[in-house]
Amino acid sequence: MRKESRWIRWIKWIVIVTVLFVLGFCIGWFAKPSNTQNHTDSSHYLKDFLEEMKADKIREHLRKFTQLPHLAGTEQNLKYAEQIMKEWQMFGIDSVEMVPYDVLLSYPNESQPNYISIVDHLGNEVFNTSLAEPVPQGYEDISNIVPPYSAFSAKGQPEGDLVYVNYGRTEDFSQLQREMGINVTGKIVIVRYGKIFRGNKVKNAVLAGAKGIIMFSDPADYWADGIQPYPDGWNLPGRGVQRGNVLNLNGAGDPLTPGYPAKEYTYRFSPEDGVGLPKIPVHPIGFHDAFRLLKYEFFFFHFKHLVIMTNLLEHCFHFHFHLEKVRMNIHTNNQVTRIYNVIGKIRGAQEPDRYVILGGHRDAWVFGGIDPMSGAAVVHETVRSAGRLLSTGWRPRRTIIFASWDAEEFGLLGSTEWAEDNARLLQERAVAYINADSAIEGMYTLRVDCTPSLHTLVYDITKQIPSPEEGEEGVSLYKSWHKRDNWTNDRDAPRISKLGSGSDFEAYFIRLGIASGRARYTKNTKTERYSSYPVYHSVYETFEIVEKFYDPSFKRLQAVAQVRGALIFLLADSQLLPLDVNEYADSLRKYAQSIAQLAQKNLVEMETYKVSFDSLFSAVENFTVAARDFHERLQTLNKLRIMNDQLMYLERAFIDPLGLPGRPFYRHVIFAPSSHNKYAGESFPGIYDALFDIQNSADPAKAWEEVKRQISIAAFTVHAAAMTLTPPA
Amino acid sequence: MRKESRWIRWIKWIVIVTVLFVLGFCIGWFAKPSNTQNHTDSSHYLKDFLEEMKADKIREHLRKFTQLPHLAGTEQNLKYAEQIMKEWQMFGIDSVEMVPYDVLLSYPNESQPNYISIVDHLGNEVFNTSLAEPVPQGYEDISNIVPPYSAFSAKGQPEGDLVYVNYGRTEDFSQLQREMGINVTGKIVIVRYGKIFRGNKVKNAVLAGAKGIIMFSDPADYWADGIQPYPDGWNLPGRGVQRGNVLNLNGAGDPLTPGYPAKEYTYRFSPEDGVGLPKIPVHPIGFHDAFRLLKYEFFFFHFKHLVIMTNLLEHCFHFHFHLEKVRMNIHTNNQVTRIYNVIGKIRGAQEPDRYVILGGHRDAWVFGGIDPMSGAAVVHETVRSAGRLLSTGWRPRRTIIFASWDAEEFGLLGSTEWAEDNARLLQERAVAYINADSAIEGMYTLRVDCTPSLHTLVYDITKQIPSPEEGEEGVSLYKSWHKRDNWTNDRDAPRISKLGSGSDFEAYFIRLGIASGRARYTKNTKTERYSSYPVYHSVYETFEIVEKFYDPSFKRLQAVAQVRGALIFLLADSQLLPLDVNEYADSLRKYAQSIAQLAQKNLVEMETYKVSFDSLFSAVENFTVAARDFHERLQTLNKLRIMNDQLMYLERAFIDPLGLPGRPFYRHVIFAPSSHNKYAGESFPGIYDALFDIQNSADPAKAWEEVKRQISIAAFTVHAAAMTLTPPA
Repeated sequence: MRKESRWIRWIKWIVIVTVLFVLGFCIGWFAKPSNTQNHTDSSHYLKDFLEEMKADKIREHLRKFTQLPHLAGTEQNLKYAEQIMKEWQMFGIDSVEMVPYDVLLSYPNESQPNYISIVDHLGNEVFNTSLAEPVPQGYEDISNIVPPYSAFSAKGQPEGDLVYVNYGRTEDFSQLQREMGINVTGKIVIVRYGKIFRGNKVKNAVLAGAKGIIMFSDPADYWADGIQPYPDGWNLPGRGVQRGNVLNLNGAGDPLTPGYPAKEYTYRFSPEDGVGLPKIPVHPIGFHDAFRLLKYEFFFFHFKHLVIMTNLLEHCFHFHFHLEKVRMNIHTNNQVTRIYNVIGKIRGAQEPDRYVILGGHRDAWVFGGIDPMSGAAVVHETVRSAGRLLSTGWRPRRTIIFASWDAEEFGLLGSTEWAEDNARLLQERAVAYINADSAIEGMYTLRVDCTPSLHTLVYDITKQIPSPEEGEEGVSLYKSWHKRDNWTNDRDAPRISKLGSGSDFEAYFIRLGIASGRARYTKNTKTERYSSYPVYHSVYETFEIVEKFYDPSFKRLQAVAQVRGALIFLLADSQLLPLDVNEYADSLRKYAQSIAQLAQKNLVEMETYKVSFDSLFSAVENFTVAARDFHERLQTLNKLRIMNDQLMYLERAFIDPLGLPGRPFYRHVIFAPSSHNKYAGESFPGIYDALFDIQNSADPAKAWEEVKRQISIAAFTVHAAAMTLTPPA
Repeated sequence: MRKESRWIRWIKWIVIVTVLFVLGFCIGWFAKPSNTQNHTDSSHYLKDFLEEMKADKIREHLRKFTQLPHLAGTEQNLKYAEQIMKEWQMFGIDSVEMVPYDVLLSYPNESQPNYISIVDHLGNEVFNTSLAEPVPQGYEDISNIVPPYSAFSAKGQPEGDLVYVNYGRTEDFSQLQREMGINVTGKIVIVRYGKIFRGNKVKNAVLAGAKGIIMFSDPADYWADGIQPYPDGWNLPGRGVQRGNVLNLNGAGDPLTPGYPAKEYTYRFSPEDGVGLPKIPVHPIGFHDAFRLLKYEFFFFHFKHLVIMTNLLEHCFHFHFHLEKVRMNIHTNNQVTRIYNVIGKIRGAQEPDRYVILGGHRDAWVFGGIDPMSGAAVVHETVRSAGRLLSTGWRPRRTIIFASWDAEEFGLLGSTEWAEDNARLLQERAVAYINADSAIEGMYTLRVDCTPSLHTLVYDITKQIPSPEEGEEGVSLYKSWHKRDNWTNDRDAPRISKLGSGSDFEAYFIRLGIASGRARYTKNTKTERYSSYPVYHSVYETFEIVEKFYDPSFKRLQAVAQVRGALIFLLADSQLLPLDVNEYADSLRKYAQSIAQLAQKNLVEMETYKVSFDSLFSAVENFTVAARDFHERLQTLNKLRIMNDQLMYLERAFIDPLGLPGRPFYRHVIFAPSSHNKYAGESFPGIYDALFDIQNSADPAKAWEEVKRQISIAAFTVHAAAMTLTPPA
């Protein structure tokens, strides 16, 4: 027993010693603050976050913010800003502030309406275009509906012959002048809306020497087959008109303060020196008035055949009909006006100095039922859901910034001024920018435009979100989208497109080089050929058009909310940034092939002037290797911050502070809005434009030198970007 | 006993439990990897590092690298590069590589020498300037000594009347034209070296319409009282000539590849479109030849009175003497040539992606005894000492990069091309750049030019380094320096100046916005009025001139090595970056006051055109508060990386990608080389230049608008910089 007792005592001792040591060790280990953040599995938070976004709530938000017209610079738009600020505060995010700027806006003169007349040989106005659109039912008593106009039009009352120039594209003006021998100098041109940004049409008209330009919505471009005009359907009524600005800012923001935020103390150029302001009067009309001007009123009731008719018109118009003279009466005023962004923030727990931004505009031409409030309602719901999640103890790893931009319709002004104001911070700290303009423009499937490094994240996210389509219960959004819009024969995945411009991501992506993306619900682009959506920028963009036609269940908007929300959630909360550099490499290769192919059209000249794309292909190859190596090193990750910085700064590496030729605020060497259509994104825009200029150059040797210079800049930029992916030392 | 035993047993138990628990706790605590890096007390390493730098070794290095001429682009300069690379590798730093670029250089034509003639009325050359400097003793057999020339001069043989234009400053040309009514159009001008960068003189001559320009070293500017000419003293012999480039690059680097690194695939402008190349012939001569041209040879032996004489000359020259015609014979060729930077790295242990750079050039006009090898020898010794420290187990927190730049003499080409090549990395990762050109230009005291945020570090460092002066044993460098060169009446501390240009920090500081500084030993600027040092850029810059006159003990060079070395050591190794934002605030206030004062000269116009500096002062005030708050928050430091990033990126915040008007590569809104003298630093250069232009403007209203615009840009930039100092979220 004595012996046994000793043995037992020994064992007891050993057990006690071990237990105490282990206990102490464990307490010591866990008591010590951790280096790498506790990697809270964020997936259940993500689930909560997405499930909290409710279709009904989005409906409510949309209803609330589309009651009254809220044009940028008006009192009502400030009221909505204040309401949004208050509600975001109530939702419980960390801070919300109102950030004002004083920018150049443009309004019709209230005492002198804008219109266009047909004048007889005595100068009498024998026909005048309508001064306003018929107001939809239920909105009859509402004041402050701005009549259709072209914002920033020059004032004036030019009078002259009218010349029809199709869509007003570069090629339309060329065709007119070269092939038909028609000179529009001193004429008033009339073009149809569509295909390209209206500002590009105006620029082309000015370059061609026109003294005025009229734009109309042709049913061929704004009319869907078998659909009634609003309110019985979602087509544009004959007296409906598309408003819009006609600037050529090329990313400058406020025309009077290019490069700098429009604050009280900021120097303002005089309006004559303002950026992108057209020098001639511009005015938009509906097709009802357009056909009168074009003497085609007898076709007016034959909508079915109008596509054919207007095509016919293209071919024969100038030869067969003599027009009366036309007079434009334009009295629109430009004026410096205060606008308000609302900026809300959730402070990041571990990386407060890394920013993920979700921004979309609030200002609307009239009610903004689709543009932008379908998007703003989605942001509102995202903020509400984020606030709820915060109250459960969650806090994102990085800072999230929500923005309600003002004056997007006047040239992306609110977002650009804020980008200019915060450029130094964003340059060093912004991880990504997700845009939230209109969340819906059709009833068919998802549409995503984004930087290549976001492709994988978008796919991952859409696999976790249910399809909003009826009859697709249990089907993922990814699958639904994939089925409807496969990328190409080369790639079996849902199509994702390049970013162009025309919305608030521009300054963030094209000027500052912040990884950016946008998502919305869209039409079937293969079968629905009309531009944008028919009632775009008209008074008929109401709450009801969304509720009755576009998304009665509000599930499509909910799906868009979930896509945008999941993007910012994962960008802000993942330990390792969910950016895929290999996708960038793939896209660069595609772009390089496609621009080289474009150049191949001029094979003989390329040989004469010794133009080669080899350096670009070799840079892309080098980038591809660097990208692959980088992702391999990610597997054995030990320097999280360093590699996240490499991921974040990759997009920045494509920025050239010298900008693109003649476009100092477009600085992204890989992507820029097309010089011929702001809405379209062009890859390797410097090379593209240089190639384009060859057609019109009087000195081809010089023009080809510019192509070579641009290839060299592109090759260098891709090499430099690859360098940022290699180990830092 | 039974009772006692139980008590004792209890006590034993408690002791054991406690001990074991504490032991376990401690092991657990310390076994866990630490979050904040073990703050190894780096001060003993710093001491070792500085003490390892030996005067004798610096002498050895200087001797070794000044044996042969090593002009940029020559074989000998490549050999020195290879030798440096090999020795740095032997010193034991982590990596050393050679980085080549192909840049435009300029050499005299070997078969057609450059010279200037006096021609008689028959066109005969009755006098020719010398083709070379007399070679100093001991170097008679050395070939490849490039004769004096102005690099990048246009070719040509202009002939015409000679007009003397003093220093060739803007005001000299104005005075000549306005006050004396002398037009230099079609004339050859002769100017004396000094006061401003020679490239500015050439630009002024071109603007004034001259068809050639000759530059000479006037004893008034290159001759110290009571000193013999070399080899008996350190004055410039009468046949000694200052070489130098005459470009106006404004920071562009290689003239043919502005904005991009000059690699094999890089597009090159044709030489006619190259940046900054003068359109007229330029040639330098010594004062021996100059006096012949100026018909003042009879003064030649009256050095004592020459200062007075040349001043007299200024007043009477143009009226009293008629000159013979002069012909310039210039056959210098520009050619694209390969240059080589040597880049050495020590990988940072904790922050490999943060770079501290010590760079200086290696190429010399001839032997480079002072410029640059006194500096290169110091870098060499710094690398050796760092290698020694590495072998004892030390490794810096951040990455250190050592650079031996090529082709500095041809327009800062090696350093600028590397900055262009690595701009994306440097933008995000560079903490500071310390320049290492000539380490000595006088025998009096220390001279430091740096960004304001480095002031405090420079003072701290110099307090730890001994004075190299004889009779000052035990006195700190700080005290010795302070005694000799107190700042001003306002500030009781050694003087520190603004950075101008004329050396390799330019691209890093002015284009990229990286905190930069330089240190060297200098003359007594109050009593020694000559420009630079007399033998500057002549064949007489030998090892011997340093050994015999400038620093026989090599202790001054050692002190400079220790200053430069301690700067990079502490910038690379301190946990918290040793940058002082409050000093920046102080300097901004001083600069704002001084530029406002300059404007006050035009009080009436300022009122007429409503020009106010209030917005700038208020921005500076805002910055001052942000800086103070920032340093207060540093006291309760818990987010080291975030605050270090704020410190690092502050300098970057002063960069405007749009650049200064007409100078796209000068992007720092607070500092730029003067438009009138590249060597001088100008604060608020945009405002300064706008104010300057008022004098010459035909449209004062417009000129004052530009002043207002520049004030607004400065105010915005200071606000934006302040914003970077506030808490990130």
